[in-house]
Amino acid sequence: MTKVKVYVMYKESILDPQGQAVKMATQKMGFTEISDIRIGKYFEIEVDADVATAKAQVEAISEQLLSNPNMETYHVEIME
Amino acid sequence: MTKVKVYVMYKESILDPQGQAVKMATQKMGFTEISDIRIGKYFEIEVDADVATAKAQVEAISEQLLSNPNMETYHVEIME
Repeated sequence: MTKVKVYVMYKESILDPQGQAVKMATQKMGFTEISDIRIGKYFEIEVDADVATAKAQVEAISEQLLSNPNMETYHVEIME
Repeated sequence: MTKVKVYVMYKESILDPQGQAVKMATQKMGFTEISDIRIGKYFEIEVDADVATAKAQVEAISEQLLSNPNMETYHVEIME
């Protein structure tokens, strides 16, 4: 069994309004040193397969299901 | 400037219906080796402060704003 992490974030060029809203909230709470917040999705996926197969499957899922390739980028990491 | 990552996940004891729905979608796509998917939130936060101050501030924000301590756990990591 292989555990895989996937991060899905907006591309750098895409505005992240949710992140901006949370940043404004932190300013109002007095955390004025916070200069940027970007929010993404995070997936922990368990695959009944070896590391190579698991990575290939999770990359396929990330591309086809978990992210919108027009607006988002994803990053796949094998968990220790 | 310090970059900090925050992961917010449902506690193990809390059902993750969104993760279950995505898992079912992967099964229908033919990825039958996928045995579990849990979905969380992921934050990349930039703080104009040294590492110790940034970590303390981000932990305070995670507790008060980014997570619901009744249902969720968070994990703070300094980015290299």
